[in-house]
Amino acid sequence: MRQIKLFIACSLDGYIARTDGSIDWLFTDGDYGYTDFIRSIDILIMGRKTYEHLLHMVTDYPHQDKQTLVLSHTRAGSRDAHAQFVSGPVRDLVEPLRHTPGGDIWLVGGAEVVRDFLAEGLIDEFILSYHPLLLGSGIPLFLPQSRPISLRLEETLAFPSGLVQLRYRHLPGSV
Amino acid sequence: MRQIKLFIACSLDGYIARTDGSIDWLFTDGDYGYTDFIRSIDILIMGRKTYEHLLHMVTDYPHQDKQTLVLSHTRAGSRDAHAQFVSGPVRDLVEPLRHTPGGDIWLVGGAEVVRDFLAEGLIDEFILSYHPLLLGSGIPLFLPQSRPISLRLEETLAFPSGLVQLRYRHLPGSV
Repeated sequence: MRQIKLFIACSLDGYIARTDGSIDWLFTDGDYGYTDFIRSIDILIMGRKTYEHLLHMVTDYPHQDKQTLVLSHTRAGSRDAHAQFVSGPVRDLVEPLRHTPGGDIWLVGGAEVVRDFLAEGLIDEFILSYHPLLLGSGIPLFLPQSRPISLRLEETLAFPSGLVQLRYRHLPGSV
Repeated sequence: MRQIKLFIACSLDGYIARTDGSIDWLFTDGDYGYTDFIRSIDILIMGRKTYEHLLHMVTDYPHQDKQTLVLSHTRAGSRDAHAQFVSGPVRDLVEPLRHTPGGDIWLVGGAEVVRDFLAEGLIDEFILSYHPLLLGSGIPLFLPQSRPISLRLEETLAFPSGLVQLRYRHLPGSV
């Protein structure tokens, strides 16, 4: 079964971007496992704002070779050159996908999409790259949830830059 | 000079306690460096709510051999059997203390006290024990700050329980 993986960078105080969405504070001196990670991925899922922010940052969409699903209430059912817009309960959306053969699914973000997937216990793996920085404010990685979720630590990597990458798996039996 | 150290446990989503203040989710199967840490400490500083919560949890106050300062607007100037109540700008409070000889200062918490010390760049060392758990809601470790603060990663420890302890130092030159 395809795994759903959250691969995301954040500040030590849990922000994925500044309040205006900017990520200029992210380390760019290395790939921090990204190249290996993206090779395992066939499908990307992200929120509309994340998608638009990504398009705004790049000249060419970097994931042409993969399937991109963008969660959007207003554009659901349509597609553009890179992505297919979808909506609806996330479980209904991803359960059929998970059971087709192929590479894993990257849950790109942002916060609301992460919250919706978490609430359904749909994130199998968490690869979190904590930057050695307290941003002070911004867009949080984890929005409030109604229930605790237990994780199992799989790996800890510390890089010379001070970035710490923590890898967790969802504990079967918890939400 | 005495160092001011934040030694604190939190969930992966950055909470130090459930909304009602309870910390029943903290690991108690080991001391996670606490014994060594507390030996280096001569002075504890905490907020009033943290202090009252601590008193509520224990039969005997565990830090009789140390000086305890409790930040409280309403009780400032008084003391009880264990603590001296103080108020005022935190810099004015701790700068004189830091320059007296002796062991280090443990900034116990909670969130508002951490925020006030952070805002003044007064935390020298951060020892954060991340539990492998998303609590979903609770009292946050880091409240919003007006400025980013850069840290230097000093040490990463991963325990068999899944707890990850990250140790950072305040980067001189940043806030």
